[in-house]
Amino acid sequence: MPVLTVALGQRSYPIHIDEQVFANADLLLPHIHGRQVMLVSNTTVAPLYLAPLRGVLEAAGLTVAEVILPDGEQFKDWQHLQHIFDALLQARFGRKATLIALGGGVIGDMTGFAAATYQRGVHFIQIPTTLLAQVDSSVGGKTGINHTLGKNMIGAFMQPQVVLADTAVLRTLPDRELSAGLAEIIKYGLIRDPGFLHWLHDHMPGLMARDPALLAEAVARSCHHKAEVVAADELEQHDVRALLNLGHTFGHAIETNMGYGQWLHGEAVAVGMLMAADLSQRFGWIDAAAVAALRTLLLAAGLPVDAPAISAADFLAAMAVDKKNVDGRLRLVLLRAVGDAVVVNVDDLAPVRDTLAAFGVSA
Amino acid sequence: MPVLTVALGQRSYPIHIDEQVFANADLLLPHIHGRQVMLVSNTTVAPLYLAPLRGVLEAAGLTVAEVILPDGEQFKDWQHLQHIFDALLQARFGRKATLIALGGGVIGDMTGFAAATYQRGVHFIQIPTTLLAQVDSSVGGKTGINHTLGKNMIGAFMQPQVVLADTAVLRTLPDRELSAGLAEIIKYGLIRDPGFLHWLHDHMPGLMARDPALLAEAVARSCHHKAEVVAADELEQHDVRALLNLGHTFGHAIETNMGYGQWLHGEAVAVGMLMAADLSQRFGWIDAAAVAALRTLLLAAGLPVDAPAISAADFLAAMAVDKKNVDGRLRLVLLRAVGDAVVVNVDDLAPVRDTLAAFGVSA
Repeated sequence: MPVLTVALGQRSYPIHIDEQVFANADLLLPHIHGRQVMLVSNTTVAPLYLAPLRGVLEAAGLTVAEVILPDGEQFKDWQHLQHIFDALLQARFGRKATLIALGGGVIGDMTGFAAATYQRGVHFIQIPTTLLAQVDSSVGGKTGINHTLGKNMIGAFMQPQVVLADTAVLRTLPDRELSAGLAEIIKYGLIRDPGFLHWLHDHMPGLMARDPALLAEAVARSCHHKAEVVAADELEQHDVRALLNLGHTFGHAIETNMGYGQWLHGEAVAVGMLMAADLSQRFGWIDAAAVAALRTLLLAAGLPVDAPAISAADFLAAMAVDKKNVDGRLRLVLLRAVGDAVVVNVDDLAPVRDTLAAFGVSA
Repeated sequence: MPVLTVALGQRSYPIHIDEQVFANADLLLPHIHGRQVMLVSNTTVAPLYLAPLRGVLEAAGLTVAEVILPDGEQFKDWQHLQHIFDALLQARFGRKATLIALGGGVIGDMTGFAAATYQRGVHFIQIPTTLLAQVDSSVGGKTGINHTLGKNMIGAFMQPQVVLADTAVLRTLPDRELSAGLAEIIKYGLIRDPGFLHWLHDHMPGLMARDPALLAEAVARSCHHKAEVVAADELEQHDVRALLNLGHTFGHAIETNMGYGQWLHGEAVAVGMLMAADLSQRFGWIDAAAVAALRTLLLAAGLPVDAPAISAADFLAAMAVDKKNVDGRLRLVLLRAVGDAVVVNVDDLAPVRDTLAAFGVSA
């Protein structure tokens, strides 16, 4: 597999995508600058993969400590972030310490935010163990935690030193998590790569069967897109990076209303993308066949296509605190065409309500 | 008064030091980029100064909300930071919102950290109302909160858009707070300006009597030093900015052990600086007369010169989590000469124990 690079000047870093990279000393050690390493993982991943990683670091003479968090989006909060700070301070780790995130998007986001704020900033490394984290959350430096009133509302931009995406670990991934990752992969096709979308239509059965070569190609093509977007708009100051949020405004509203951890992020994004497609059709930008094709693809990926029972008022209230909104005005990512996303200001909520109603979300 | 500038390229910002600047529309409004402003203050300062500030912003047509925190270092924690996030989300403030800190160092540090992390970063403005905040904490972008195991252990570097240091508000400052600010002012003389130290010796009675011209000159000379140091080493990656920590390793140990809010930060720094001077004398760098002169100056400024009842073990344990330490090795700022500070690695704790014992801190 080629090594990808996220090109951000002095903050540039490599993404290694291959089998057996997660505990590879040659890939890890050059990115650890001090003598102290804190491993952050969860109760699901740690029993499977923490020991070999710890062994490589200890063999290099490093001081290694660990903190194991419960597994799930509902634990992506301040209280559990505090466990990381407690462990760092109890171990008396200093500003040259390195944090390593070994887990999915929740572990990556929390570890990155802990690294951004512990003693005003220490280094960190991403070892994503879910498909979703490998193709999306581990790349690009968005870190943070949830607030009861909104997802990812507290956080920082903090780039890792390196990303080690080990495709071998995907073999132990639960089916639901595999599907959730496929949602974000489909997203890249929808917003900027129609050819990739066709490839995904053709190869979805093989991806669902965890064909290693197909999964590796899907991860690499997704990371390539993510790296390009992040290099163009690291801090989401323009609309370039915001396009990665296709389906996320609707999706975050589902996650916030259902309670974090009930729906996987990728599942909520799947329904959210279909809602965005529906709304794009109402704007006359894509046709019914395109929406139907997306629905078929999401179903083939084992993803939900129906909204949960939420009132329209609650749904819209959660959408109103989205980070893309400016001065209280709703902004959504929609599809001008399949493979061509755009950020639009939405002042008239009537078509949004129509889309919600079409998914059974009504007053 | 001249306008000082903190020269940090695109992140440069002005410091206005004068009477009647805190609610001056011409100085404030150019630094507010969105339509939403959150005022953050405390129960002591808000009744005195919040209304005129709010009036100026509302007259400009801005949406203004406020959050009033309890007053004191013991509230500089996650729980109270959360109140700021709650207020921002309840008001549905977005990424173009501006936070304004109206208060002392605690309010400034917490507001800045909230700005650094709300939706991964929004703008903020510092309106410091204590002498200590005007001469030190409001300038330079160090923000954060305390952890029970260490002061300022969680935070971010986040520069404000502007600092409005209104010397008129110092008239309402309690005597203890005035003295606490004088401690940080004395620090600038000790670490880099012997002439300023002489000026302080000469004018301490006038400063204690709150002579407006003398206070304004002390604030301006201090901010000049702070701005120079920050411009040279914004992220404290070299030892330049670390020199501002003279007395702070000892001082933080006092604050952590006594419980936040018992000693004012400046009071702890005063004793800490005298301890650092004592240790510098043990190293043969300064003489007993210099230590005695510092003691006299601190007493003239109404500051403590004796340590509280803490065991040496507890004192050293708190010093061991200082952010300057590297890979577990203690690092202290000491005086090579009066007006010339240096960061030193301290591997032999014996002279540190001797200094602690000289202040009554023993096993």
